[in-house]
Amino acid sequence: MFIRNAWYVAATPNEIDDKPLGRMVCGERIVFYRPEPGRVAALEDFCPHRGAPLSLGRVLEGKLVCGYHGLEMGCDGKTIAMPGQRVRGFPPIRSFPVAERHGFVWVWPGDPALASEDKIPHLAWAEDPEWAYGGGLYHVACDYRLMIDNLMDLTHETYVHSTSIGQPEIDETPCKTSTDGDTAVTSRFMSGIQAPPFWRMAMRAHGLADDQPVDRWQICRFAPPSHVMIEVGVALAGHGGYEAPRDKKVYSIVVDFITPESETSMWYFWGMARNFRAGDKALTAQIRDGQGKIFSEDLEMLERQQANLSRWPERKLLMLNIDAGGVHARKVIERMAGAERAETAAA
Amino acid sequence: MFIRNAWYVAATPNEIDDKPLGRMVCGERIVFYRPEPGRVAALEDFCPHRGAPLSLGRVLEGKLVCGYHGLEMGCDGKTIAMPGQRVRGFPPIRSFPVAERHGFVWVWPGDPALASEDKIPHLAWAEDPEWAYGGGLYHVACDYRLMIDNLMDLTHETYVHSTSIGQPEIDETPCKTSTDGDTAVTSRFMSGIQAPPFWRMAMRAHGLADDQPVDRWQICRFAPPSHVMIEVGVALAGHGGYEAPRDKKVYSIVVDFITPESETSMWYFWGMARNFRAGDKALTAQIRDGQGKIFSEDLEMLERQQANLSRWPERKLLMLNIDAGGVHARKVIERMAGAERAETAAA
Amino acid sequence: MFIRNAWYVAATPNEIDDKPLGRMVCGERIVFYRPEPGRVAALEDFCPHRGAPLSLGRVLEGKLVCGYHGLEMGCDGKTIAMPGQRVRGFPPIRSFPVAERHGFVWVWPGDPALASEDKIPHLAWAEDPEWAYGGGLYHVACDYRLMIDNLMDLTHETYVHSTSIGQPEIDETPCKTSTDGDTAVTSRFMSGIQAPPFWRMAMRAHGLADDQPVDRWQICRFAPPSHVMIEVGVALAGHGGYEAPRDKKVYSIVVDFITPESETSMWYFWGMARNFRAGDKALTAQIRDGQGKIFSEDLEMLERQQANLSRWPERKLLMLNIDAGGVHARKVIERMAGAERAETAAA
Repeated sequence: MFIRNAWYVAATPNEIDDKPLGRMVCGERIVFYRPEPGRVAALEDFCPHRGAPLSLGRVLEGKLVCGYHGLEMGCDGKTIAMPGQRVRGFPPIRSFPVAERHGFVWVWPGDPALASEDKIPHLAWAEDPEWAYGGGLYHVACDYRLMIDNLMDLTHETYVHSTSIGQPEIDETPCKTSTDGDTAVTSRFMSGIQAPPFWRMAMRAHGLADDQPVDRWQICRFAPPSHVMIEVGVALAGHGGYEAPRDKKVYSIVVDFITPESETSMWYFWGMARNFRAGDKALTAQIRDGQGKIFSEDLEMLERQQANLSRWPERKLLMLNIDAGGVHARKVIERMAGAERAETAAA
Repeated sequence: MFIRNAWYVAATPNEIDDKPLGRMVCGERIVFYRPEPGRVAALEDFCPHRGAPLSLGRVLEGKLVCGYHGLEMGCDGKTIAMPGQRVRGFPPIRSFPVAERHGFVWVWPGDPALASEDKIPHLAWAEDPEWAYGGGLYHVACDYRLMIDNLMDLTHETYVHSTSIGQPEIDETPCKTSTDGDTAVTSRFMSGIQAPPFWRMAMRAHGLADDQPVDRWQICRFAPPSHVMIEVGVALAGHGGYEAPRDKKVYSIVVDFITPESETSMWYFWGMARNFRAGDKALTAQIRDGQGKIFSEDLEMLERQQANLSRWPERKLLMLNIDAGGVHARKVIERMAGAERAETAAA
Repeated sequence: MFIRNAWYVAATPNEIDDKPLGRMVCGERIVFYRPEPGRVAALEDFCPHRGAPLSLGRVLEGKLVCGYHGLEMGCDGKTIAMPGQRVRGFPPIRSFPVAERHGFVWVWPGDPALASEDKIPHLAWAEDPEWAYGGGLYHVACDYRLMIDNLMDLTHETYVHSTSIGQPEIDETPCKTSTDGDTAVTSRFMSGIQAPPFWRMAMRAHGLADDQPVDRWQICRFAPPSHVMIEVGVALAGHGGYEAPRDKKVYSIVVDFITPESETSMWYFWGMARNFRAGDKALTAQIRDGQGKIFSEDLEMLERQQANLSRWPERKLLMLNIDAGGVHARKVIERMAGAERAETAAA
């Protein structure tokens, strides 16, 4: 079940710099490419001539040239030319709304008429020189909603990430979930605790003594179709916690763009945006490597959870208070996807 | 088709010493673990919270702690606790009767009310200091009944194991099969032959001249659900064969616990128990390595036989005199599994 | 969809010199073996005793001995003997017409009564000492008809093989397709062009200056069930092109025996026959290695084309003039396979 009329992160810009990229998003096989430097196009990955994947082709003077027999495809899905052929009657292929913004390539798998670029989420940190970002991509063999659940309930950090960002106080501190229309926010504030290893590293990097008690926060925000942004940080205890002045805290945003590939597989674009030592590229790399290692710890759990659910599809799962964020996200997805299907059926 | 109300070997004890083990038996996904040293428990490998596999968790103070969000499960399948939650209303998961005995972990996939430990087969050699045992485990992609067939008809040794335990005299000597209720015994006695390489090695290990003619025997015993114990040995010719005094023969029991995983895959616990030089661990290792190599020769044959049968499911196979043991085993399995299904339907 | 009453290349002779070979052709699992040197037999790869694959057995005194329990099978599919058994009532297995000719092992998957060896295609070059042949085998996960399409439309050389045999002039020069009953010929003649790298190598090997303009030709001949022979060559410009005298041209035949394995996989026997320096084995090896590398460039394209077509089975493909050869081949296959099915249904 996917929301189709929405912007999904499909790729990072570097993935299409040198050659076309074939990638499935929401069940659609799509080729992404640059008709010219700085621009991006997205088409069905299917040559209208004989069905070859256009992603095996190359870009020539703005056209995507099929690597099998040389059909030249335009960004609008209409064939421009083919050696020795009249192409006017060739059937078009689908062209997908696509945009490069905030350091990501975004695609809209649904109705192009609705695809205003205004609807791309605004990522303030991506445009602010005081912030730095590093991230990566994992392919995970599970329903993308299991990843939303994962990120809206951070009690799993205590168990899955016990050596880096987990600590018993997460479990021991109740979280609160509030919803506002299509979004949900699950937050947890811990006071006067010792920071776990990952945050001690960040404190040192920011010039803070890492053995002092801290206040720690986690604010997970779900927005449709499947984005989860998490404000995380620690402040030296007694300086206001989340509201502490910048020199008393380290603060970042965990960025999670969760893009369905199929009903049971997904692309996970993960990363971290931070507003301290933004110019320090070595630190960006160090944080990205650390986060990549931590986030890889979730993969076996999610894939084997999916295997269990596929085997017992009728089995009801619990919906506890800690699950409230994920539960709301599922309701939003069901409602919006259902409305889309109803509109399609009516049309 | 499986008999469910029966004890199957699920694991060897060392497999669960350090952490939980997830293993499918008769189509059930089960987690095996030690709530404390020397004890063993078996549960559905499915956390009632969100369906995570409990086998990715760890044991803490007798409880199986889910590795995802910390739910604490008891050996009876009832949730004991979960951080920040009231667990009284959590649905229980299935708990399977399980026991450690004779050097194996046994599980009962069927009705727990019927699972008396008295029904675990008695393995006299496992408790006798004059006997030694060594063995291993293979995963085989075939119906477990093909392995029963394999072991109840040892004429295949001549072809599959021609360089170790096979010899033409096996083929040339008729076997006899007798049945007694649910069990079957297929036996073959050869007289005045040369021992094949594996047995010459065993004769030397026992201090017998390996170039003397021997009498050789094979007595294959099937018992439900799917156990095959084979008495095998050679005695210097003219000393009474199977009944020869211990200093004139080498004698052992081939141990085969055949545990269905799914309809077309299985766990094969193989081994050999011997009553000569029982304290010689190097010899135990040597025999285990030799047997492991010999028994691995069956795997490709069985898996490709399965592939053939899956492709031609309607094709009738022959049931010759040499197949009588396997044929009887299949009848017993069909009758007992059929009776179980009838009882379940009636209930 | 396969034509069954036809000779297909199943193997090269060396593949069965040492032991039996199991290979699926047109959905039939077949074991090929040599009952004696120089002869070949083909049977269902299914032992009538317990369904073991006979291809795991060995040949003894003309009989195929099952590697499981020693059943001895004759070339006619009738069991000859089995240790300790009367075999007269054993059910026969299918025996397939098979022949070794022209350096290939041919099999007829259909009605044996129709399998005259006269119907094996005559390959003049295979029997002529002035010709040399080298080739290889690829397994490809696509409908075999996609390979026919590939070889009847060589405009793909410009794109898939741009560094070896491709050149823009192929695209720029129209091809012509003529049909004659069940066969199709697509040909293209280019004049006064520069030879591409592969042909320059061949010109040098033949003692021709490789920097001179040439005429180049490609004549692709489809014959049922799925053979494509392609006359290819270049001649120094102005000497008659295809008709030029032998010392002014290099000329060869690309040999393509395309054997279905299943509906979506195939065995591709590719090679090249040439009539210059036929005795030069190093040159044969050099050409074979070069051709193998070039032809491997098609595999990813074909397998991903198949994946696209499997996903969108209802989608119509274009049938352009360059596709005329493949389109005719498909019509011939549909007609002949349909007639076979009708005959079978009537019988």
